[in-house]
Amino acid sequence: MSFTPLIRQLIDALRILPGVGQKTAQRMALQLLERDRSGGLRLAEALRQAMEGVGYCRQCRTLSEDEICPQCSDPRRDDSLLCVVQSPLDVFAVDQTGFRGRYFVLKGHLSPLDGLGPEAIGVPELLERIAQGGFNEVILATNPTVEGEATAHYIAQLLLPKGLVVSRIAHGVPLGGELELVDGGTLAHALAGRKPLTL
Amino acid sequence: MSFTPLIRQLIDALRILPGVGQKTAQRMALQLLERDRSGGLRLAEALRQAMEGVGYCRQCRTLSEDEICPQCSDPRRDDSLLCVVQSPLDVFAVDQTGFRGRYFVLKGHLSPLDGLGPEAIGVPELLERIAQGGFNEVILATNPTVEGEATAHYIAQLLLPKGLVVSRIAHGVPLGGELELVDGGTLAHALAGRKPLTL
Ligand SMILES: [Zn+2]
Ligand SMILES: [Zn+2]
Repeated sequence: MSFTPLIRQLIDALRILPGVGQKTAQRMALQLLERDRSGGLRLAEALRQAMEGVGYCRQCRTLSEDEICPQCSDPRRDDSLLCVVQSPLDVFAVDQTGFRGRYFVLKGHLSPLDGLGPEAIGVPELLERIAQGGFNEVILATNPTVEGEATAHYIAQLLLPKGLVVSRIAHGVPLGGELELVDGGTLAHALAGRKPLTL
Repeated sequence: MSFTPLIRQLIDALRILPGVGQKTAQRMALQLLERDRSGGLRLAEALRQAMEGVGYCRQCRTLSEDEICPQCSDPRRDDSLLCVVQSPLDVFAVDQTGFRGRYFVLKGHLSPLDGLGPEAIGVPELLERIAQGGFNEVILATNPTVEGEATAHYIAQLLLPKGLVVSRIAHGVPLGGELELVDGGTLAHALAGRKPLTL
């Protein structure tokens, strides 16, 4: 069977969505056409508005259609704490934990082999933001990967001489699940980072 | 964290896609915004064009922006064989097997409790299509579910008096996998439908 050109074009376009392969795209396209055309049109319009209208917060560099994002403009947040992450989704994840300081979003992690140095990921803008002042502590919450660690280490070396408290999120065993399923590196970190219990 | 209104609107709109929950929608929205805005705009346009431009083939009732779909207009197909399915995706699935007859697409299956009788699912149009003539055999390829079986049975009762060969796709064990994992009903069908082997 050949799908008609408009349906084929829709299936191809749906495949740019992360995690969507050919079969899923076919199911999505035909289900929208069969059952929810107004929803499909709403999605088209939401995509257009977001792709054209959303930029980056001038202060924290997260995605935002306003010059200053909701997190940066919220007057009830702790101005002494800055959490540095490597993507806008991480802002969401950290905020879900109840953290209510400020954020700075890097453009990914350092990747010298790909030509991504400090400038490419926004380190100068981070230093500028910190120079504006008021932070007592900078929490480096880049990913717990080799690249994320290297990026955190690099930034720490720049900030420590300024007399700031610079911290890194803890590594350890995740909540739930079984110890035997935890990888060795994580378990070693969990042991090294053990904390005394008190009565 | 509050996403900004345009991002929230996009996340909500993405959730109309089948199988896409809140977390997946967030990841999709932010990944498009961060990495592929032109792809996002292309998807918006493909959605708009398909939702507004795709109708139904006048002959087989599958989704098509042309009055007559590619399957119906293909002169190389066998005009004596009609395969009746219950959704446009099934046309695709059957065609993938190499079947090269004609199709008719019902609007789902009979569902008296939901008020979906023969008219609602397009049985009169099917009878009309068959009356135009030329078919020797009608293959009922509705789903192997209780409702699909009932729909096939109902249609068979209408067609058999017309002297047509009416067939139902075979039930049996699927290829691959292990016999012990096949459900009892399927296995019973496979036994009853056993075929003698020849040298
Ligand atoms: Zn901001
Ligand atoms: Zn057709």
